Amino acid sequence: MATYLITGASRGLGLSMAAQLAASPDSEVSLVFAATRQVNGSELSELVKKTSGKVVPLQLDPNDPESLRTAVELVERRLEGRGLDVLVNNAGVMPETEGKIEKMDDLPEVFHTNVTLAHLVTAAFMPLLRQGKRKSVANITTTLGSICLVGNYTWSSAYAYKITKAAMNMLTVQYAQDYAEEGFSFFAISPGWLRTELGGQNADLPVETGAKAVLKYVRQGGAELNGRFLNIHVEGWENAPGPNQYDGKDAPW
Amino acid sequence: MATYLITGASRGLGLSMAAQLAASPDSEVSLVFAATRQVNGSELSELVKKTSGKVVPLQLDPNDPESLRTAVELVERRLEGRGLDVLVNNAGVMPETEGKIEKMDDLPEVFHTNVTLAHLVTAAFMPLLRQGKRKSVANITTTLGSICLVGNYTWSSAYAYKITKAAMNMLTVQYAQDYAEEGFSFFAISPGWLRTELGGQNADLPVETGAKAVLKYVRQGGAELNGRFLNIHVEGWENAPGPNQYDGKDAPW
Repeated sequence: MATYLITGASRGLGLSMAAQLAASPDSEVSLVFAATRQVNGSELSELVKKTSGKVVPLQLDPNDPESLRTAVELVERRLEGRGLDVLVNNAGVMPETEGKIEKMDDLPEVFHTNVTLAHLVTAAFMPLLRQGKRKSVANITTTLGSICLVGNYTWSSAYAYKITKAAMNMLTVQYAQDYAEEGFSFFAISPGWLRTELGGQNADLPVETGAKAVLKYVRQGGAELNGRFLNIHVEGWENAPGPNQYDGKDAPW
Repeated sequence: MATYLITGASRGLGLSMAAQLAASPDSEVSLVFAATRQVNGSELSELVKKTSGKVVPLQLDPNDPESLRTAVELVERRLEGRGLDVLVNNAGVMPETEGKIEKMDDLPEVFHTNVTLAHLVTAAFMPLLRQGKRKSVANITTTLGSICLVGNYTWSSAYAYKITKAAMNMLTVQYAQDYAEEGFSFFAISPGWLRTELGGQNADLPVETGAKAVLKYVRQGGAELNGRFLNIHVEGWENAPGPNQYDGKDAPW
């Protein structure tokens, strides 16, 4: 009977998580709010049709504060007095820089999408989350945002992505600190390198595998996860060569 | 004979570092460029007068890209063919949030000053730094920006400051990675909690003590510091009770 809200749900990991949640029995998942900038024409509209009301599309324009207020009102109406149980801040961008870091020219925009937006969405939904039974917020981050692991990812020129995901990690632990006593659980989780528009086709895992591995924690999401930097567990990837070991152990900051 | 540029130099730590560098013999420090938003009427103008040309004021409006270009041109003219040896990205703000983190409403502006500006200044001065003998860039950060140490600082509601300093740390290590082979040294350093306008009057240390402790590394600043998160060393504070042990050991990310 839990209710979920996922941002960045029109494609990739967000869409896959929404689809997997929607496929769960109603006794486990009753409503999935799927937020995205542009619902129409996306694969999300197909999912909405197919699931006949269980997936509710939400228009959320990151540059229009009014659209966030409208989204909160719509969610509140649809919840009919219930709370929102789980929020997944999944919306994110990973542009690459041509050349070394001194050429990075997109830091403010990437920060807005990857950090400020996650904060604004979380803050706006706090009243409904407080009424929820789970009080769980998952922030989709990445091991590329681990300052400790930076040496593993010299091959990636997604400079602004790494900087903003480190910032998102700090956002997460501060939320975790502030609301633990209210029974909240805020955690950061790295979904692995997935074959999506963002991850590209050379990535390690099919998007469904990453979505399933993330949802394992998201569906559970109790106080024991609060303030942690989780890495997914994928069988066979526990001791992979190279940096991407999906061993389910917490990642270092 | 080294040449320095310090941002945020009209007050606090920046001003104190500029004054200490200016007091060094010309054989050690030949020029100190002191950048700030508003030179006129600041304590910096006094320092400029007193040091008769050794401290050169630079107007730098964080919201005007043209002022950065003008500043680079001015520095280049004054260097007369020499390089810029050391850059200290010190400009920063630390606003506090009233209430818990969901009330934070200043994240984009704080990010602009504490991270984007440090990046833009660094990138703009890279050509002159390449001509320098030291190729050293110190980013003034804080242990409050350490995600590992976040539990030490629950008393501080400077949420945006912590988030943006974690981001600045990731900025620093990525610069460190990209330019090590060119002989650069980029490091992050926490100056301690200082009695300044930013730190307040309950802080641990006089600003001059923090400035001196930071400059110990900044004057040295070789390849051995590249990519590190330094904490100052202050005698008598190595085993202080509470979180602020100024023991000169690297801080965890």
